Amino acid sequence: MKARVTITLKNGVLDPQGKAIQHALGSLGFSGVEDVRQGKLIELELATTDRVAAQAEVEAMCEKLLANTVIENYSVELV
Amino acid sequence: MKARVTITLKNGVLDPQGKAIQHALGSLGFSGVEDVRQGKLIELELATTDRVAAQAEVEAMCEKLLANTVIENYSVELV
Repeated sequence: MKARVTITLKNGVLDPQGKAIQHALGSLGFSGVEDVRQGKLIELELATTDRVAAQAEVEAMCEKLLANTVIENYSVELV
Repeated sequence: MKARVTITLKNGVLDPQGKAIQHALGSLGFSGVEDVRQGKLIELELATTDRVAAQAEVEAMCEKLLANTVIENYSVELV
């Protein structure tokens, strides 16, 4: 079973990487970009076929390793 | 209008960051993880309200700056 985890910075947390992208897009002539936020995408291939167990396991992975829950939000999607 | 760009490594391209995550998950006791791939997520806030123009503009951004099309795939989703 495949799981897709998206990790984004919480609102209000500064995102210098996003600002750098926004600035670079402006330099390239893309003028209509008002804000850019960069996040992470992690795709996991799991051995289990139990959706409920998989969801719980991936959420535990996010809490323990994948996301910094002080400044980041995560969402888990089973594919 | 919001656009969400997901950038993933093409199949066959080595992903050392994903391997490191997989190894770390194994060390933490998550044993059923068969593969991990890490990608990027970029959320753009655009001034335009024209969906067709927005889609074309974001694809141009991906080709020129956001993705390395030699080793990465990208997909654009308007929210």
